[in-house]
Amino acid sequence: MAPLTLYSNPVGPNGWKVAQVLCMLGLEFETVMKDFGDAENGVKHPDFLKINPNGRIPALVDHTADDLVIWESGAIIMYLVKKFDKEHKLYPEGLKEQALVDTWFFYQMASFGPYTGQAVWFKVLIENKEPYGTERYVGEVHRHLKVLEQQLTLPDSQGWLVLGKCTIADLSFLQWVRFLYRLGIDTEKEYPAVHKWKEAMLAFDGVKASTVGEVWVPA
Amino acid sequence: MAPLTLYSNPVGPNGWKVAQVLCMLGLEFETVMKDFGDAENGVKHPDFLKINPNGRIPALVDHTADDLVIWESGAIIMYLVKKFDKEHKLYPEGLKEQALVDTWFFYQMASFGPYTGQAVWFKVLIENKEPYGTERYVGEVHRHLKVLEQQLTLPDSQGWLVLGKCTIADLSFLQWVRFLYRLGIDTEKEYPAVHKWKEAMLAFDGVKASTVGEVWVPA
Repeated sequence: MAPLTLYSNPVGPNGWKVAQVLCMLGLEFETVMKDFGDAENGVKHPDFLKINPNGRIPALVDHTADDLVIWESGAIIMYLVKKFDKEHKLYPEGLKEQALVDTWFFYQMASFGPYTGQAVWFKVLIENKEPYGTERYVGEVHRHLKVLEQQLTLPDSQGWLVLGKCTIADLSFLQWVRFLYRLGIDTEKEYPAVHKWKEAMLAFDGVKASTVGEVWVPA
Repeated sequence: MAPLTLYSNPVGPNGWKVAQVLCMLGLEFETVMKDFGDAENGVKHPDFLKINPNGRIPALVDHTADDLVIWESGAIIMYLVKKFDKEHKLYPEGLKEQALVDTWFFYQMASFGPYTGQAVWFKVLIENKEPYGTERYVGEVHRHLKVLEQQLTLPDSQGWLVLGKCTIADLSFLQWVRFLYRLGIDTEKEYPAVHKWKEAMLAFDGVKASTVGEVWVPA
């Protein structure tokens, strides 16, 4: 049995987000794909609610730590870097540097992710039947993309959000940025620095490894 | 000058969230209240965008650390407990315990807060002009409140989310739970454990101190 079990879903960006960090850190893990809804393999089924009472993926079980259960992608990634990133590849050592990474990491978790998720709901999943919602959330996604484009083009950014290198802050955005084509946003044309940033992350061996053997890879 | 400056807003729950943690830790700080919008004192004015390019409160400046700027309430609170909570009053020392707190802390940041914020937008700020949005988000808030009610009534909870004591996970919810009356949700009647939890936090001297001298206190 692998030391770590990741509960995920093929179309949920937050499961991939965790898989990418696991692979970037070279960790061995098993993925268990869950369905949406309350059927037997569903995230709202009583069996899975024992793992995550919020009924969402991702969740992680660490079998080397008394089967510790962690859910919320942000909490899982924090645990992974604290426990396994001893060389500080993806998360820095200093308090100040951690605060800079945390700022953009929480920004993804609390703003970019939720707003993009709502935009996908209104525009794609309910097929723009409520145009007010589409306009509100797609508009907000564009506002956030301008914030990111500006940050990534600062003179000393080197194409990364902070510290001039790839951290969990950058990686936390990757799967959500890959999802933007579903909103009709062409990052290559509209947000070139964001696009370049996405491509740089996709070129990492760890990120490539995270999708090996999986059935669903977004365009 | 106080060693820390908090940029906040009287009606924004996330500014109060940080103020409550600052006061619970007994830290000296100055609050600068910002307005919404792009006028001179606004969060979207170019001067404030230099502090937070996302144009939101809260933001914190640590004048004892070369005026380090941190934004996003989650990142600010993480910095505060790492730097100042040496006795682990609000954030535990062990990796496993931190993961449990982080799970609920990120749940507030990434789910409960954003959904409650959208519910307030649709029901209160645009006066239910788009009933689909009100129904969607108020419904989601009720779902989250059931998750919280269940967690707070687990046999060993002692009325707190994890570890049987108040941590930053609990405090991160306080100002958002206080806000629920704006959605017409009567926590005392509908979610008694959530209500008792809120009252227990409001009774802390630190939480009381966080609103001293301020103009706006929600019911």
